[in-house]
Amino acid sequence: MKSIQKKTRVGILGATGMVGQQYINLLVGHPWFQVTHVVASSNSAGKSYGEAVEGRWHMKNALPETIKKLMVYTVDDLASVKKNCDFVFSALDSDIAKIWEEKYAEAGIPVVSNASTHRTTSDVPMIIPEVNPEHLDMIKIQQKNRGWSKGFIVVKPNCSIQSYIAPLAALHKKFTLKSVIVTTMQAISGAGHPGVASLDILENVIPLIKGEEEKSELEPRKILGSVKGNAIVSDTSFTISAHCNRVPTIDGHLACVSFSCEKKPSEKEILNAWKNFKGVPQELDLPFAPIQAITYTDEANRPQPRLDRDNDKGMTVSVGRLREDPVLQWKFVGLSHNTIRGAAGGGILIAELLKAKGSV
Amino acid sequence: MKSIQKKTRVGILGATGMVGQQYINLLVGHPWFQVTHVVASSNSAGKSYGEAVEGRWHMKNALPETIKKLMVYTVDDLASVKKNCDFVFSALDSDIAKIWEEKYAEAGIPVVSNASTHRTTSDVPMIIPEVNPEHLDMIKIQQKNRGWSKGFIVVKPNCSIQSYIAPLAALHKKFTLKSVIVTTMQAISGAGHPGVASLDILENVIPLIKGEEEKSELEPRKILGSVKGNAIVSDTSFTISAHCNRVPTIDGHLACVSFSCEKKPSEKEILNAWKNFKGVPQELDLPFAPIQAITYTDEANRPQPRLDRDNDKGMTVSVGRLREDPVLQWKFVGLSHNTIRGAAGGGILIAELLKAKGSV
Amino acid sequence: MKSIQKKTRVGILGATGMVGQQYINLLVGHPWFQVTHVVASSNSAGKSYGEAVEGRWHMKNALPETIKKLMVYTVDDLASVKKNCDFVFSALDSDIAKIWEEKYAEAGIPVVSNASTHRTTSDVPMIIPEVNPEHLDMIKIQQKNRGWSKGFIVVKPNCSIQSYIAPLAALHKKFTLKSVIVTTMQAISGAGHPGVASLDILENVIPLIKGEEEKSELEPRKILGSVKGNAIVSDTSFTISAHCNRVPTIDGHLACVSFSCEKKPSEKEILNAWKNFKGVPQELDLPFAPIQAITYTDEANRPQPRLDRDNDKGMTVSVGRLREDPVLQWKFVGLSHNTIRGAAGGGILIAELLKAKGSV
Amino acid sequence: MKSIQKKTRVGILGATGMVGQQYINLLVGHPWFQVTHVVASSNSAGKSYGEAVEGRWHMKNALPETIKKLMVYTVDDLASVKKNCDFVFSALDSDIAKIWEEKYAEAGIPVVSNASTHRTTSDVPMIIPEVNPEHLDMIKIQQKNRGWSKGFIVVKPNCSIQSYIAPLAALHKKFTLKSVIVTTMQAISGAGHPGVASLDILENVIPLIKGEEEKSELEPRKILGSVKGNAIVSDTSFTISAHCNRVPTIDGHLACVSFSCEKKPSEKEILNAWKNFKGVPQELDLPFAPIQAITYTDEANRPQPRLDRDNDKGMTVSVGRLREDPVLQWKFVGLSHNTIRGAAGGGILIAELLKAKGSV
Repeated sequence: MKSIQKKTRVGILGATGMVGQQYINLLVGHPWFQVTHVVASSNSAGKSYGEAVEGRWHMKNALPETIKKLMVYTVDDLASVKKNCDFVFSALDSDIAKIWEEKYAEAGIPVVSNASTHRTTSDVPMIIPEVNPEHLDMIKIQQKNRGWSKGFIVVKPNCSIQSYIAPLAALHKKFTLKSVIVTTMQAISGAGHPGVASLDILENVIPLIKGEEEKSELEPRKILGSVKGNAIVSDTSFTISAHCNRVPTIDGHLACVSFSCEKKPSEKEILNAWKNFKGVPQELDLPFAPIQAITYTDEANRPQPRLDRDNDKGMTVSVGRLREDPVLQWKFVGLSHNTIRGAAGGGILIAELLKAKGSV
Repeated sequence: MKSIQKKTRVGILGATGMVGQQYINLLVGHPWFQVTHVVASSNSAGKSYGEAVEGRWHMKNALPETIKKLMVYTVDDLASVKKNCDFVFSALDSDIAKIWEEKYAEAGIPVVSNASTHRTTSDVPMIIPEVNPEHLDMIKIQQKNRGWSKGFIVVKPNCSIQSYIAPLAALHKKFTLKSVIVTTMQAISGAGHPGVASLDILENVIPLIKGEEEKSELEPRKILGSVKGNAIVSDTSFTISAHCNRVPTIDGHLACVSFSCEKKPSEKEILNAWKNFKGVPQELDLPFAPIQAITYTDEANRPQPRLDRDNDKGMTVSVGRLREDPVLQWKFVGLSHNTIRGAAGGGILIAELLKAKGSV
Repeated sequence: MKSIQKKTRVGILGATGMVGQQYINLLVGHPWFQVTHVVASSNSAGKSYGEAVEGRWHMKNALPETIKKLMVYTVDDLASVKKNCDFVFSALDSDIAKIWEEKYAEAGIPVVSNASTHRTTSDVPMIIPEVNPEHLDMIKIQQKNRGWSKGFIVVKPNCSIQSYIAPLAALHKKFTLKSVIVTTMQAISGAGHPGVASLDILENVIPLIKGEEEKSELEPRKILGSVKGNAIVSDTSFTISAHCNRVPTIDGHLACVSFSCEKKPSEKEILNAWKNFKGVPQELDLPFAPIQAITYTDEANRPQPRLDRDNDKGMTVSVGRLREDPVLQWKFVGLSHNTIRGAAGGGILIAELLKAKGSV
Repeated sequence: MKSIQKKTRVGILGATGMVGQQYINLLVGHPWFQVTHVVASSNSAGKSYGEAVEGRWHMKNALPETIKKLMVYTVDDLASVKKNCDFVFSALDSDIAKIWEEKYAEAGIPVVSNASTHRTTSDVPMIIPEVNPEHLDMIKIQQKNRGWSKGFIVVKPNCSIQSYIAPLAALHKKFTLKSVIVTTMQAISGAGHPGVASLDILENVIPLIKGEEEKSELEPRKILGSVKGNAIVSDTSFTISAHCNRVPTIDGHLACVSFSCEKKPSEKEILNAWKNFKGVPQELDLPFAPIQAITYTDEANRPQPRLDRDNDKGMTVSVGRLREDPVLQWKFVGLSHNTIRGAAGGGILIAELLKAKGSV
């Protein structure tokens, strides 16, 4: 499935920001997708992308020449978007996303969004391709609800939950999750650039990331919910409590998770569930799919952000330290790369799934 | 109470290590205690203390001249200890402590110990002066049990629990603690020097500190236990689950705590319990007692290790972010200075309490 | 000299920024000066100072109650300044300082400034109290030049040069400095808050601080220059080359310095010059004067920012590792606390000198 | 040249240390070389390599299965070495290297060494393949001097000089280098594992690395020297002064360099010399050769360790900020990856050159 003849043309909304840059960076040499359109604020519009990001290109790899030359458009130039691309990744700020994503969809352009705007919209699926690919069925309903023909919106969840949702989802069907208490230690790249001031975080921990705990407690319920009638109905059979902290790491969100299920699984059952956890991306061998959606390690002091975040191209969830929890039933440590799996890489995997399903 | 005429003479066992140095550092100018004897390994024995720590004095303040000149003794020279000091702080390694602390006590020398050796010994009280001063009643029983006359052993608990035990103890009596899930983010100084390799922790988090979770789960039960007959009986009415992490901070252990009680307290009841929490050290106005054993802050993103660890001479527990917990009842963030409150400072406060009670 | 009956009333211009906060922080309990007036941007004007800095008070010590209640004025309200204070510290941004500092001086208000605006103005003295107190003679000339009666402007130099100018000045008179090559490793607090983005500096070094090398190469020549006629004439007999780097330390600018003199001093001559280096602040026993303006250490791996920046209240320059330089004559390492000696503390020492001389 | 039919068999002395691990890591999939023999201390001998490094494999990539199974030998088992490999990389500690490297050479085994032992031995060439490949002529003389037939010793220089020697060497032939003053900011990985204690370096700079300044001042003279008679004669026409600092970066040694030549080159001449600098590795297209031995960047604030150390597989020297120096003639910033170019990668490039020349 990895070779497709003519590449799908992709636009990036919010292309000069950190997530937009990460999209451009990760899509270099992508076998299916080609960045053909970049949208940014009016400050950048009319410039070449190279000029627009001069002095603030934060990726390690150099900006490719072909992207450098792309002209930057403003978000309101829908005609150019329609001419230049088949679908868009939206890395817009929430307030701008609120205004424009629906207009794009209405105009017939599929939108894969990193913005938080539509995460709670009941007919917008929030997708982790290995976890809830069936929520893409919602697209047709969404189009019908809205009177849209070709366009639609799908969103990816917040980066903070990626380190533990897949491991919990792997258990939920069989053992029915009841309670989760999670403490995250999140990397500074999650706040973008300039983001966290060095004076605030160097040799320090900040025990608050605004809005993050609320998202962490709600989003998993929607992801593990089900399509019912015109909407996705959250699964409220389990409850999550989140403590979110910022720590001085560059990339990689780490999570300490305690949980219990309706039926307590054995250690072996859990490890098997994780080992055998495969999703549609793995079955379809999607280009950005990790070999293992969940990678369990026996090493006693792992996963660690600096050592494990890049495992399997930054797309796997690294898990370790499964042990009994004296209060709930079990506890473990999870890690995912927040700017790859948790942001642009996660969005690309959604788009690959959409492509494989014929939706883009 | 703060002026006492003739200072009590104090020996430091393990005087050249990090905790030993911290004792010496904190005791400079102490109104009641005077360091008169230093014990270290045979490598250092016979040297002056100044020579023994040359090039490895890790305190910010310069080593005082009077201490520099003290001769270093070996741990087996009990005669010199008896001649030179009224009681000792033990910062010995556990295996050495196992051999020697009882011999000291037997020889009539009170031992206030930071070693983990006797924390689980049933007739050895493990003291946080604001929390369980009544456990000092155990001293007489211990002496009787062992046939000791003047000597005894009291220990202070592990540094990792100091960030949350006082806040929980303040609620326990009235509301009966049931369940606690805590994730700690512990500073590198907790591992001593050289301790954690920089290659392991810089721009990283290590989700394991050997033995720390076990201690964190057990020690609070003894501290909140009660003297019954010949032993301290742990309070097993509540259960703790601990996740312990090493983070790249210098000093200050941070804890994210979720808990529930038999009777759910209101927010106001909790804040009042913390605000009004006073202990014997505050009543007696002990020199090292913080003004507030627990300092609650309303600022949304506090406490933070770098900004709050030195509050109230590093002896208070800084607490913030009390909010409802969807799984248990409440959650909060706690912080204490691990090498002051959590190590030497905590030991000194125990000794001050012993002095005030006439036990040393 | 340390007790003065009625305190001099001090205003802080730019009071809500980092340097302004540092002034307020360091002046708590000052024996001579009392902060009575605070000036900030129109966003803060009309609020109490406590409200104005809520959530962005970056000092470790809590904001004192008396300061909290001060009303914040705008910079253009000269009448209130005149009513409320005897002189001002200016921590204004350069462009604002350019407009207002002269107006303040003209209105009769002495200005001790941290802004770079007037550092190159020929009749404005740039003072390090131990190095060139005689440049204060320029005040009368400046007043005559400008037709000012009571007001005047004096400035303190850039923080990056404080780590090595005193040690070099101590040698200049006797041995005549010729060439200096210096590489600085500067702390993030030098850029203020938010200042350096954590994503830029964590686990990294940035080998550029805009404008810093130029200042470092020019300012020492003015400081070591002399009052001639209506102006301070720079000493161009020596040349400095500076490499300025930002490193991930919180406070403390470190400098590696190679230098040569017209007459090569011996090691002993250098160490004696440093040891015996005393200035007017030490002679007058000014409150903020360090005991030693230069503190030399024999320890092979010192000074270090984290361990030595707070020496002598953060006001001394710590120096070590004097050794022969194969290219120039000698090399050494210097360190000073950039936000104390290098910013607000340095300004306060200038003001104390002015007070002692009767100028404020 | 990149395909060679039968791979050369390689042994690693000191295979369990950090540099040894880096060799094994970098040689995975090498087109010419295959690791067939691993030597470590007697603690590890007899174990499989996988067992020997369990819990202390510090590379990001997993240890390959084929290497895991290799049996670990002791250094004195020369017979096994001779049987199993064609040449060895020595990552032995200096004192062990002193004893064994010559015995290996005598036994007919070529040794490419990272140890400092023979760097000052006059008939042992110290090679940077782009800079002084002609020093390999010394091998025949060395063999003659020593009465060795097939074996020999070549060494690679200290990691600290790699960031600036190539840029200076590129100018030396044409403009004759006179004076260099360099300040390095070196990464913690340069000290191996456990190496620098986190308590020493976190939020700090240590202005001393033992022995590093001496090596930095001497080694370049040998590298730029010439083969004369039985020995390599150092080029003493230029003088280097080095300040070496440890900073909290993981990888990448940064250097601030000021220099002058007998004939002052123009900016254009320098940039051309760097741009056109090609060496034998580039001509021969050796597998580990960077495309550019020196990569100049125009970006004002580069090179930076975290952003640029991995450029060109970590094998290029990144250079930037060329500007006039007021004391000497020019100054610039250089960076190289200390554990790749500066250690194992540099050794591999030497071995590739030896292979291409038919010496191994």
